[in-house]
Amino acid sequence: MEYYSRHISNLVEQLAGLPGIGAKSAQRLAFHIMHMPKEQVGQLTAAIKDAREKVQYCKCCCTLTDQEICPICSNPSRDRQTIMVVENPRDLAAYEKTEKYEGVYHVLHGAISPMLGIGPEDIRLTELMQRLQGDVKEVIIATNSSLEGETTAMYISKLIKPSGIRVSRIASGVPVGGDLECIDEVTLLRALEGRVDL
Amino acid sequence: MEYYSRHISNLVEQLAGLPGIGAKSAQRLAFHIMHMPKEQVGQLTAAIKDAREKVQYCKCCCTLTDQEICPICSNPSRDRQTIMVVENPRDLAAYEKTEKYEGVYHVLHGAISPMLGIGPEDIRLTELMQRLQGDVKEVIIATNSSLEGETTAMYISKLIKPSGIRVSRIASGVPVGGDLECIDEVTLLRALEGRVDL
Repeated sequence: MEYYSRHISNLVEQLAGLPGIGAKSAQRLAFHIMHMPKEQVGQLTAAIKDAREKVQYCKCCCTLTDQEICPICSNPSRDRQTIMVVENPRDLAAYEKTEKYEGVYHVLHGAISPMLGIGPEDIRLTELMQRLQGDVKEVIIATNSSLEGETTAMYISKLIKPSGIRVSRIASGVPVGGDLECIDEVTLLRALEGRVDL
Repeated sequence: MEYYSRHISNLVEQLAGLPGIGAKSAQRLAFHIMHMPKEQVGQLTAAIKDAREKVQYCKCCCTLTDQEICPICSNPSRDRQTIMVVENPRDLAAYEKTEKYEGVYHVLHGAISPMLGIGPEDIRLTELMQRLQGDVKEVIIATNSSLEGETTAMYISKLIKPSGIRVSRIASGVPVGGDLECIDEVTLLRALEGRVDL
């Protein structure tokens, strides 16, 4: 179906390979790019290349960063005795936006998922265990509240418990502002189990 | 909000500038790109660059193509006396997929829109009028059935009529397989006005 130029078809194919972009959106994007000023196209391709080539994993917490050690790990005012374990840098950013957490992080880059064939050796667990050799008081597990996230949380807590370090899990329950009737049964039960005295 | 690397923030910003990609999708795409193999990222950036730099307008019908003259215009079995006027290359592709149209095309790259400040001089009308100097029997106007498309169709027909060349407009009505109750009143009225004897 070579109705357009070979180059356009190739671009459409490449774009359609990205997550959340279907055949129609890929076509629309490709034609948008065709009509973009050349400098702007240069900026877009440079941004893609730079992000892929210049960004590295923080030697300490494994998040994505420009330097060897990320700004959070190198900030002397952060509490290094508390480590929050998250699945990916977006989750780290979500907690940073609260501006209340003062500890440091550890980014796993995934979660254990037997279904997808992702085992404990495929996520950054070795790096976490190495960090625990130092002076750490608490590990807060903030993996997602999904099957994979819960499995990972259980696995990590069993791994760390023998060392005597405190291991906690972020609370699961009704989101603030959430309407009870719109919330699934599992969350409602969790909220009930985790009730606190007033 | 520099929670990630500067390079990632830049990529997210660039991606969010594309049509149909919001802040959240841009972030998801950026992290997908971060984890793509380097060769695949190279293919993506090359595809964007090639499409923008190597594709040109057909000297005859103004569609986007690799060569000076597009494959349709250079095909000797196409009927050069019939020209279908479309708004963009995607519309051309849509008619090519029917595999029944044997004439050639003319791509306007837009439609007249006083609201957006697009006048007759901003679309490829001069090129169309030049082509009509040759041996042309019919111009079929296949612009969209929108306000802009209809305005453009009216404008072109008034422009061509004096030359004596036949000017036609593709039919407007109920789509095949369409359910009458789901179709808007304007379309229903058009279908009634355009009724044909059985």
